Amino acid sequence: MLLILFSLSSFSQNNILVFQSDFGLKDGAVSAMKGVAAGVSANIKLYDVTHEVPAYNIWEASYRLVQTAPYWPAGTVFVSVVDPGVGTQRKSVVLLTKTGHYFVTPDNGTLTLVAEQMGIQEIREIDEAVNRRKNSNESYTFHGRDVYAFTGARLASKVISYKEVGKKLPAEVVTIPYQKPTFEKGEVLGGIPILDIQYGNVWTNIDKPLFEKLNVRIGEALMIAVFKENDKIYEGEVRYVNTFAEAKEGSDVGYFNSLLNFSLAINMGNFSEKYKVFSGNEWRIVLSK
Amino acid sequence: MLLILFSLSSFSQNNILVFQSDFGLKDGAVSAMKGVAAGVSANIKLYDVTHEVPAYNIWEASYRLVQTAPYWPAGTVFVSVVDPGVGTQRKSVVLLTKTGHYFVTPDNGTLTLVAEQMGIQEIREIDEAVNRRKNSNESYTFHGRDVYAFTGARLASKVISYKEVGKKLPAEVVTIPYQKPTFEKGEVLGGIPILDIQYGNVWTNIDKPLFEKLNVRIGEALMIAVFKENDKIYEGEVRYVNTFAEAKEGSDVGYFNSLLNFSLAINMGNFSEKYKVFSGNEWRIVLSK
Amino acid sequence: MLLILFSLSSFSQNNILVFQSDFGLKDGAVSAMKGVAAGVSANIKLYDVTHEVPAYNIWEASYRLVQTAPYWPAGTVFVSVVDPGVGTQRKSVVLLTKTGHYFVTPDNGTLTLVAEQMGIQEIREIDEAVNRRKNSNESYTFHGRDVYAFTGARLASKVISYKEVGKKLPAEVVTIPYQKPTFEKGEVLGGIPILDIQYGNVWTNIDKPLFEKLNVRIGEALMIAVFKENDKIYEGEVRYVNTFAEAKEGSDVGYFNSLLNFSLAINMGNFSEKYKVFSGNEWRIVLSK
Repeated sequence: MLLILFSLSSFSQNNILVFQSDFGLKDGAVSAMKGVAAGVSANIKLYDVTHEVPAYNIWEASYRLVQTAPYWPAGTVFVSVVDPGVGTQRKSVVLLTKTGHYFVTPDNGTLTLVAEQMGIQEIREIDEAVNRRKNSNESYTFHGRDVYAFTGARLASKVISYKEVGKKLPAEVVTIPYQKPTFEKGEVLGGIPILDIQYGNVWTNIDKPLFEKLNVRIGEALMIAVFKENDKIYEGEVRYVNTFAEAKEGSDVGYFNSLLNFSLAINMGNFSEKYKVFSGNEWRIVLSK
Repeated sequence: MLLILFSLSSFSQNNILVFQSDFGLKDGAVSAMKGVAAGVSANIKLYDVTHEVPAYNIWEASYRLVQTAPYWPAGTVFVSVVDPGVGTQRKSVVLLTKTGHYFVTPDNGTLTLVAEQMGIQEIREIDEAVNRRKNSNESYTFHGRDVYAFTGARLASKVISYKEVGKKLPAEVVTIPYQKPTFEKGEVLGGIPILDIQYGNVWTNIDKPLFEKLNVRIGEALMIAVFKENDKIYEGEVRYVNTFAEAKEGSDVGYFNSLLNFSLAINMGNFSEKYKVFSGNEWRIVLSK
Repeated sequence: MLLILFSLSSFSQNNILVFQSDFGLKDGAVSAMKGVAAGVSANIKLYDVTHEVPAYNIWEASYRLVQTAPYWPAGTVFVSVVDPGVGTQRKSVVLLTKTGHYFVTPDNGTLTLVAEQMGIQEIREIDEAVNRRKNSNESYTFHGRDVYAFTGARLASKVISYKEVGKKLPAEVVTIPYQKPTFEKGEVLGGIPILDIQYGNVWTNIDKPLFEKLNVRIGEALMIAVFKENDKIYEGEVRYVNTFAEAKEGSDVGYFNSLLNFSLAINMGNFSEKYKVFSGNEWRIVLSK
């Protein structure tokens, strides 16, 4: 009984609405979305993941969500608008994860990693007959403002319940294929989902338990190969460290980042630029001792 | 009587203050403005249009305001600081529009489009003898912080009423001339007020009722010519579509944007970069069948 | 007695938390910090100085704090994360200034200018045994999220008192050396702590009382020499003005900026780019009549 109460309250919306898009901050698109949301409720609190997702890059939208959402309290509503297929038959949905976070977005792959890592509790399709800003029917192209921000704000501030979003869908989302981490023949294989672009660090999807199958200790060397599809882009040796400060300036290191995934960096430098290693579905990494 | 009450309440400030400037986000100028505003009232809510208006570009400041303000609730106060003439005799004003939005800004052209499209209800000059941050008299150059943010915050949080801003001025603002949309001899003429820079789309000021005088249907071709002053920059044919998804990747299309104005784009591409078509007062477009 | 009460209340936290970092806004790092803070208290209000501090630039972090903090109300808590030495033995501290502002940061030089200009009231070391986000012990590298944002939010929202941050330290901070302003042999010497990068203006640390020893009047010429270490980078004559509008477009001027420090600019132009004058500890300026 207590568990049920706890569970219900942890899924209850908390007036927090967090936006993500590929709109950038140079024009008024983000502000128009926030204006619509602020008009829904005086109690709503508006924040951002980022609006600098590269244009049309659904993979990166998916990554940014799963990178940040777990640090927001349960009950938080996210609106993500990276939507190259606006106007096509992709569905507009709200995903409730097992962790109690809500995601309002086109179901175009954006939910790939959130669904996988935070779990699908329930998924509903936005009923635009009721969940659409008034007088917006002639506008074909700004679903972010007229449907997603509007619905997200009404959900976050409890103007509507989760059920009032629209009809329940099967518990599945559109997913983007990518290389999953695995251990084979003494090597660890993985993908490179993203760069830490501010510093040029290369983030893999290899976690610590998998990495530890290599039996490499702090301070030891590690062999690395990086492929883009079938082309080998980088091959070299890095030192496995706890923190950059353990390595000399300018030296190549492997470490676990703030998400506890294996990453490559140059202490006080830029690994990605130096070795032309970038990120996305088509990138793979191989680690060996 | 009910109408009067409704009207009064719709003009009543709502604790929301929205900032715009050409300061960028790399230094502390925007933060200093917000700090001053946050110090005025614990209830104030601070948001942004954009701070990436190109330096000194009053035309674009005017455009960004009218692009976003209508989506914020009535009673919202905007502070816009694009002010190349700071220290000259331009007036510091607060415009109340017929829609119930307030605009705190130098009267230097920034209000051109807001006044035209949202209507002038009343305009008042800021009395700096009372509406100026204490101990700021020696500072000649940061009106944004010491006068505009301070006055905007006091107005938004009802520390002062609109009348306490200062004396009433004639109901007119400084305006920037630009090409208005018109139909002549079977052609639609218009201006190019702005780009959707994130995607490189070209936004005109031609609305749907005017466009429909051409009798072009969805899916049909349209002849376009674009001029910068007297130079023809682009001439070509585009397909008129509801949404990008109806066109092939890489093809030139015409469509109505989220403001319901005619626009040019390349599906999954950048029209502006490809054809060197930019925006501003000096740009004109001609549409024919 | 009244003084004590006033003093206590002016130091009391006000639910305002202001973030600064060198993370940029392209990924999810800032959002993760804000999510942690938003989860601490429903009443907290989250703002920013900037997240565009150049990577690892502690000097500029120090400058941005002192440029903005005095404009936020007393009781405001700042979290600054520019932390090239993460994982080393630099201390994590919270400084309370004599002005009643709190600064949560690694003690790596970031506090240089705040301590000097706002005064050290007290300084405490963060006790990570209690002031650290739960389940974050395995993460070596994101102190910004797990320690600084978490502690800053708990302090700002009074979940902990200032004393509960951790043990009191001696009233001193790690400082970065730089050229201080001085008057010698008829010349004013000073440093160039920062650029107003949006406009390319060059900001010195020379205030008005020192400048006035030169006896230069508004409208008169002024001789300027700028050095980077021992190299003379610029030598020329500027006109001393109250506001840019007093000078012709394109002319070099000297003026007092919004912080009331002497600065160099080109009216409607970019002084820094034209003359390759930049900023930092190693830059000096000499003014003479």
